[in-house]
Amino acid sequence: MIIVLKPNADEKKFQKLQSWIKDDLGLDIHFSHGEKSTILGLVGDTSKVDIDAVSALDIVESVKRIQEPYKAANRKFHPLDSVISVGDVKIGGGNFVKIAGPCSVETIDQITGIARAVKAAGANMLRGGAFKPRTSPYAFQGLGKTGIEYLLEAKKATGLPIVTEIMELTDLDMFNDVDVIQVGARNMQNFRLLKELGTIDKPILLKRGLANTVAELLMSAEYIMAGGNEKVILCERGIRTFETATRNTLDISVIPVLKEKTHLPIIVDPSHSTGFSKYVKDVTYAATAAGADGIIVEVHNDPENAWCDGQQSITPEAFAKLSTGMDKIREVVSAL
Amino acid sequence: MIIVLKPNADEKKFQKLQSWIKDDLGLDIHFSHGEKSTILGLVGDTSKVDIDAVSALDIVESVKRIQEPYKAANRKFHPLDSVISVGDVKIGGGNFVKIAGPCSVETIDQITGIARAVKAAGANMLRGGAFKPRTSPYAFQGLGKTGIEYLLEAKKATGLPIVTEIMELTDLDMFNDVDVIQVGARNMQNFRLLKELGTIDKPILLKRGLANTVAELLMSAEYIMAGGNEKVILCERGIRTFETATRNTLDISVIPVLKEKTHLPIIVDPSHSTGFSKYVKDVTYAATAAGADGIIVEVHNDPENAWCDGQQSITPEAFAKLSTGMDKIREVVSAL
Amino acid sequence: MIIVLKPNADEKKFQKLQSWIKDDLGLDIHFSHGEKSTILGLVGDTSKVDIDAVSALDIVESVKRIQEPYKAANRKFHPLDSVISVGDVKIGGGNFVKIAGPCSVETIDQITGIARAVKAAGANMLRGGAFKPRTSPYAFQGLGKTGIEYLLEAKKATGLPIVTEIMELTDLDMFNDVDVIQVGARNMQNFRLLKELGTIDKPILLKRGLANTVAELLMSAEYIMAGGNEKVILCERGIRTFETATRNTLDISVIPVLKEKTHLPIIVDPSHSTGFSKYVKDVTYAATAAGADGIIVEVHNDPENAWCDGQQSITPEAFAKLSTGMDKIREVVSAL
Amino acid sequence: MIIVLKPNADEKKFQKLQSWIKDDLGLDIHFSHGEKSTILGLVGDTSKVDIDAVSALDIVESVKRIQEPYKAANRKFHPLDSVISVGDVKIGGGNFVKIAGPCSVETIDQITGIARAVKAAGANMLRGGAFKPRTSPYAFQGLGKTGIEYLLEAKKATGLPIVTEIMELTDLDMFNDVDVIQVGARNMQNFRLLKELGTIDKPILLKRGLANTVAELLMSAEYIMAGGNEKVILCERGIRTFETATRNTLDISVIPVLKEKTHLPIIVDPSHSTGFSKYVKDVTYAATAAGADGIIVEVHNDPENAWCDGQQSITPEAFAKLSTGMDKIREVVSAL
Repeated sequence: MIIVLKPNADEKKFQKLQSWIKDDLGLDIHFSHGEKSTILGLVGDTSKVDIDAVSALDIVESVKRIQEPYKAANRKFHPLDSVISVGDVKIGGGNFVKIAGPCSVETIDQITGIARAVKAAGANMLRGGAFKPRTSPYAFQGLGKTGIEYLLEAKKATGLPIVTEIMELTDLDMFNDVDVIQVGARNMQNFRLLKELGTIDKPILLKRGLANTVAELLMSAEYIMAGGNEKVILCERGIRTFETATRNTLDISVIPVLKEKTHLPIIVDPSHSTGFSKYVKDVTYAATAAGADGIIVEVHNDPENAWCDGQQSITPEAFAKLSTGMDKIREVVSAL
Repeated sequence: MIIVLKPNADEKKFQKLQSWIKDDLGLDIHFSHGEKSTILGLVGDTSKVDIDAVSALDIVESVKRIQEPYKAANRKFHPLDSVISVGDVKIGGGNFVKIAGPCSVETIDQITGIARAVKAAGANMLRGGAFKPRTSPYAFQGLGKTGIEYLLEAKKATGLPIVTEIMELTDLDMFNDVDVIQVGARNMQNFRLLKELGTIDKPILLKRGLANTVAELLMSAEYIMAGGNEKVILCERGIRTFETATRNTLDISVIPVLKEKTHLPIIVDPSHSTGFSKYVKDVTYAATAAGADGIIVEVHNDPENAWCDGQQSITPEAFAKLSTGMDKIREVVSAL
Repeated sequence: MIIVLKPNADEKKFQKLQSWIKDDLGLDIHFSHGEKSTILGLVGDTSKVDIDAVSALDIVESVKRIQEPYKAANRKFHPLDSVISVGDVKIGGGNFVKIAGPCSVETIDQITGIARAVKAAGANMLRGGAFKPRTSPYAFQGLGKTGIEYLLEAKKATGLPIVTEIMELTDLDMFNDVDVIQVGARNMQNFRLLKELGTIDKPILLKRGLANTVAELLMSAEYIMAGGNEKVILCERGIRTFETATRNTLDISVIPVLKEKTHLPIIVDPSHSTGFSKYVKDVTYAATAAGADGIIVEVHNDPENAWCDGQQSITPEAFAKLSTGMDKIREVVSAL
Repeated sequence: MIIVLKPNADEKKFQKLQSWIKDDLGLDIHFSHGEKSTILGLVGDTSKVDIDAVSALDIVESVKRIQEPYKAANRKFHPLDSVISVGDVKIGGGNFVKIAGPCSVETIDQITGIARAVKAAGANMLRGGAFKPRTSPYAFQGLGKTGIEYLLEAKKATGLPIVTEIMELTDLDMFNDVDVIQVGARNMQNFRLLKELGTIDKPILLKRGLANTVAELLMSAEYIMAGGNEKVILCERGIRTFETATRNTLDISVIPVLKEKTHLPIIVDPSHSTGFSKYVKDVTYAATAAGADGIIVEVHNDPENAWCDGQQSITPEAFAKLSTGMDKIREVVSAL
């Protein structure tokens, strides 16, 4: 961490700052006295220093972190790719996951039917919403507990592990038999929820928030990991920008950026990022070629009659082609 | 609601759509047949029609809402300003609230001292964080229940009503004696929390999310109001943009926009929107002149030693001047 | 175009509007009278109707375009892919272009050396900046006319067609022998320049602006095409968002979006969009898999000593691998 | 400037870097050797060091500027407010300018009539577009040279100095009698134009670009000032964000931010930032209360029949009230 002092910083406050750094934080200081400003280089483990507290000091002009504020999620301290196991499925470190299923669970026949179809088409995990975050209080909000039960039936029928979203801490008990718990974009900074999920032994699929940076995504992963649960799967699902031709803007570069900064696997959601089924194929191929560790895509047997997000759902037939396409692209890219 | 059909829309599907609109939704349809497209105008109460479901239909090119999807929060159905009462304090309809206090409650002396100071300086409500959403799991997270107890002590000592943030539904019991419950920016779309807050009889201070539109803010208010709690105070606290000179970008225009669209009061947070105490004054005056119904500002007796957000906190002395300034600007503006 | 009138619209103004639409614009009107609002559907060629002028009318609540405001660039009126020829090189309609070269032309040896290297590595066009838009007036601004002369020498030595950026209309004479003229992101809405480029017979590489929508990009293409020059190549080079881990945010979804809306070829710039050479490979593969018609990438023989943008330039060796990778991905994707 | 080296940086490259800094740039270096990284503090005038060039070096992890890259526009080197004189009108340093007039000049009667009306209502400068940047090639593009002639007639009739926009360098000759030349948002980084405007002796009204930071705005001012023309008036006119309730998002905080960083005057455009006449009043009062040095607002005698941007134009009557309001707010605020 580098601290730049204001010109003519008060000597007494400067002394106080120095003893706080040395005595309270246990860090060393290297000084650099310039013409107009003095610069302090902090040496030691600064990952837990509160940068805002330092910035608030009257004598400080600016502060810059050198060391990232996350440790558990940091590739520097964990150079090898993490591989997350979900039943027989592995994610990361060269293992690619194809998660498919409807936006929301509707009936037991619907979810079991789709589960069978996507399994036949190459999926190795089933998604489906039981609790749905909806902008309007008047829109369908999901089947809740019944939805999870239907998902478990679909799992029984097909053997596919299931992933579904938790919206509220108090529901956690219902997720005991769920294989992967999803934290949605709107909850990426629901720190209480993250903390609790850090205490359980189950993979967490953490979606990036609409207005959250890569650094914030990693800090949210850190919240979970700091509690002891290191099974975090990151998910890019588009960010909010000024462009309205797509529902959100898929930040494709986040794949190599995250590969550099963290050892955690990163998957992509082509459905929510584009918002239109017609764009799903090209964006999925892009994510695959860029080195993503998997995709999570909305598949519905009858998109026009889906209870939610039908506009962005593809059919099982389209998914089958997509699945083949991903395999072929991965084969080529991994040999490059 | 206007539905534009694709050219050469399948006749059978078109019939199905028509009967859904008429029979299931109970709406009338006006037709407009153009050269290249057919347009349907839906007549009746369309506020609860799921626009996404309509968009998903194969034969639909695009859909446009005419009627807003919120009703309870809509000024069209409630032309007069809502006035929210908190003890003797009134907010909205010409009543201006000055909420001041520290980012986080630290000690009983700190919060009581600041409460006395801001009251003397013109504040009529006290803010203070007991539960703090922090980006880093290693940062100070608030005193929790104890923080609320200290706030209640400060209320007893000064008579100021208190507002403090709820982070998690399960904490709701601790807020029984709190006067106003704040929903933070990161929870603006925590729909489960909103729904629960709709069932209680207590004013809610709803902060706009960093990446949320005005329309989404009003839908979140609608979540609360749909449950029966109409005491919602909206709060603009800056949105996330590409500009980094300030912590966030205060969207000042939101004041007249909200005044037009809703009857709910709107207050402004100059501290979180700018992130620097040095910019608080000018931005507060701007919000006052633009017609805001109040402000919520961070005040700390010793900003440099604040446990959080010291960089954006002003001193009680600065707040006293600010308070006088707001009064004078309001006097002038209300006479224009 | 759909016009929604305000409730209780003044009858006289309504009559005036109707005669303007029918008599001045030569369009037909379909009426839809709802409970609260009257809707007009305009029938005919509305692409040139000024939507702002209609919105300004006192009696108008809102206006929605059905027909796109661009015609020449619109795939609806030109279903087949445009193929742009540059010497022997073809772009679009299944033809992929690899444009490589340094950020700026430095010396005749540098540009000729790089030209030879990228040609050997698979490039079929050479890029290089002669006029450089730089944020700081104190930074190197390019060799100007001499830079173009050096590029022409490199063309002579290798046979590669050249593309270079024009910054100012008055320089146009210097571009007579340039094969493709590039319009940079900052000039995407320099309408005078676009208009002039519409009068010449030379392909234009039009880069999307940092804050410009797809619709605006197509309107800028329309400016050129309206003048008679239909040889426009679109280029996505990243947009400005809140994320700072990369220089800009590459909007990968723009590829299928543009493929749907226009017949013009679309290429991608992985260098400016990411800003770091280490991310170029993955993003280039993504663009290739998503169906781009080519890429334009910065290649420098000695990135560390480049006179500008060395941070995002790759070496000729890295480009050779990239070129092979793109070929293999295209082969697979085109067979899917 | 602070340079953080990568761990285990190559010694030879490190030596090369040091001699470049010392010998070529003439700067001193202070070293800080940490456990994992070495930090260099550069001492001396670093405002013209190319930060991108340093970042490109293989051994460099990151670079941070301490000193701003602009000098002429920097308040640190010019503590007193600049006051720009336009005829008898002064801007900055406590002098407030009210610029009013139509989006575009239409007829000699229109512009002279509006000029008389806004003068009577309190304006001290007249605006009007002769060259109009329009998104569509099919929209009205302004009267051009004739528009300037009409403006000069209106000036003759009223004595009001005039400000009008230049779109293209080659038009500069037509601006000889114009009092203030406006550079529009789309041209904020048209560096060739800025450079040329730096060589003339006439105030320049420089509008912030839709996606440009404060730092970039100041660098564009620096382009003009570096050429010798120090008469630059900055203008905030809204930035592009995800919010669509207003045309753009007015960044009100930019006023105190710019007041801190530069001595140049800053004015606000409430018309383009909001896009709707109904929001102009509140936003204008906000800008006035926040300490802006003036406003530039669109006024039209007949907004519904304006040839462009009628939706955001106010009437002369509304402007008269606005003018009084600004005066009263300024009186109060300047006494605080």
